[in-house]
Amino acid sequence: MSVIERLTAAVENEMEQVEKLLFSTVASEVEVLRSICAHILGSGGKRLRPLLLLISARVCDYQGRAQIPIACALEYLHTATLLHDDVIDHADIRRGASAAHVLWGNQATILAGDYLFAKALWLAGSAEDLRVIRVLADISTCLSEAELFQIARCGDLSLSEQDYFHIIRNKTASLIGGAAVLGGMVSNASPEELNALHAYGMSLGMAFQIVDDVLDYRSNQQEFGKTIGKDICEGSLTLPVIHALASCASGERERLCTLLQDSSLRTRHLDEILAIVDRCGGTRHALDAADRFAREAIDALGVFAGRQHAGLLAELARYVVRRRS
Amino acid sequence: MSVIERLTAAVENEMEQVEKLLFSTVASEVEVLRSICAHILGSGGKRLRPLLLLISARVCDYQGRAQIPIACALEYLHTATLLHDDVIDHADIRRGASAAHVLWGNQATILAGDYLFAKALWLAGSAEDLRVIRVLADISTCLSEAELFQIARCGDLSLSEQDYFHIIRNKTASLIGGAAVLGGMVSNASPEELNALHAYGMSLGMAFQIVDDVLDYRSNQQEFGKTIGKDICEGSLTLPVIHALASCASGERERLCTLLQDSSLRTRHLDEILAIVDRCGGTRHALDAADRFAREAIDALGVFAGRQHAGLLAELARYVVRRRS
Repeated sequence: MSVIERLTAAVENEMEQVEKLLFSTVASEVEVLRSICAHILGSGGKRLRPLLLLISARVCDYQGRAQIPIACALEYLHTATLLHDDVIDHADIRRGASAAHVLWGNQATILAGDYLFAKALWLAGSAEDLRVIRVLADISTCLSEAELFQIARCGDLSLSEQDYFHIIRNKTASLIGGAAVLGGMVSNASPEELNALHAYGMSLGMAFQIVDDVLDYRSNQQEFGKTIGKDICEGSLTLPVIHALASCASGERERLCTLLQDSSLRTRHLDEILAIVDRCGGTRHALDAADRFAREAIDALGVFAGRQHAGLLAELARYVVRRRS
Repeated sequence: MSVIERLTAAVENEMEQVEKLLFSTVASEVEVLRSICAHILGSGGKRLRPLLLLISARVCDYQGRAQIPIACALEYLHTATLLHDDVIDHADIRRGASAAHVLWGNQATILAGDYLFAKALWLAGSAEDLRVIRVLADISTCLSEAELFQIARCGDLSLSEQDYFHIIRNKTASLIGGAAVLGGMVSNASPEELNALHAYGMSLGMAFQIVDDVLDYRSNQQEFGKTIGKDICEGSLTLPVIHALASCASGERERLCTLLQDSSLRTRHLDEILAIVDRCGGTRHALDAADRFAREAIDALGVFAGRQHAGLLAELARYVVRRRS
């Protein structure tokens, strides 16, 4: 049994309700909308955000059912961003991929994302707690701003480690941190507990994204469901490359810059890029950073010491940095 | 002074606050986001939705300021859909237009739409009224579903008048009806008044969209800011064509079908299509329908008889069917 399976089993009953609600809420009369939603929601996501929200509520001894629609809302928000990320730019029309935009076109894919966003809002409204709405509004703002910042800096070799952390904090950690906090909010957790959940979730999200970016270099396509080196080929700089650029000897640095600056060289010399990044300790550095964030996440849980389910959150943090896919 | 200018002058103070808030809320640190928002918000929209909300609140004798952020939220929602509509599909990459996607690319345009949606939610949350959130969630659901339904039926010559009304009710009237209702909600209007405002706004929205679609056939590019016959060229059937197909003699019907079924014939024979539609009374029929909806809108205002500003709403309904752009 994988860690995710074990954690899911710990909140099995709630997760089943989340799964049901995820599909029943998007039973639109518009057939293409049903198809896109079923495709993207059924494509084997880990449901990390709902899972985290449910476990956080469990840690806070919550006994109600208000966490179910909010858990769905978070998965919709996450899925909507995946759909919108998936739309291709007219600049690189030739890049093919078997994703939603290939099957249904850009416009239908965008609208399905908008629909999931609308449904997220609709479910969140059912919580009857304006704090929940505010958290969702803040997360959504962070997500779109960070994605735009990332696009604007795409191919920019001067992107610093600090810029990278800024991007992933807003692009990934905001939603994962939000999931943890919302689990506490529905439980009427104390301000101290909410702060702890937020700190935990933000650090967890940072560790998660750093590992995701490392896996983009390392994992094989079958295991990870993505092509290796996609970030590099697209000109998106992540921590291993940023560290390599900052720390390798000037000769290698020059070579790395030459390769990264040109979109066709990046793709043709991917293996060489990966080798340089490794030699310069880029991957090691990134994994160390992820470990540090995971430890910070676990440290933030001190306020829940002795609580029956707090161990699950610690286990999730350890899993996030050890996972291979 | 145009009707819109006169109506705007009637709520001048509030409209100024709306304008300020519209730009200050999107003063993002991300430069490209500021540019896209400034471009689309400053491109000369009529601000029909904020205006309607402000006048509705005035009719209900509202004295507070909670209508300002909600008016902004509606304009953001409307603007977000414009940005998302604007993204081109990979199927028709060759069609050029000087729109947001040309200036900033598809991905930045989508993300700017998402950002405006997030900011709409953020402003709506400030109203501290969950009914407002529910109205926005319902509107957003309607918008995306209707747009997808419309795309799915694009080029389908069997689209009925009923289908068309279904599309524009959800795509346009839902947001305009929502604006009127929200103006009442912030004013703590009675259920009877809320129903009247909803009925008024829905009918106004129907009339507005029918006229918009007629203007697509009639208006010149300079006045309307759009190319004539865009809907026809794209295969989108609107009321004049739907009526012509349903009512013209079989010979003309056959010719019309032949032309409409082929995307290159549609564009090359646009003048002939417009002539057939006119001969079959398509435009007249559509304008009559718009008039009927405008009258229904005005009839719905009975509950406000004698109220000082109710005349502004009636004037808006008359304007919507008479406008030339």
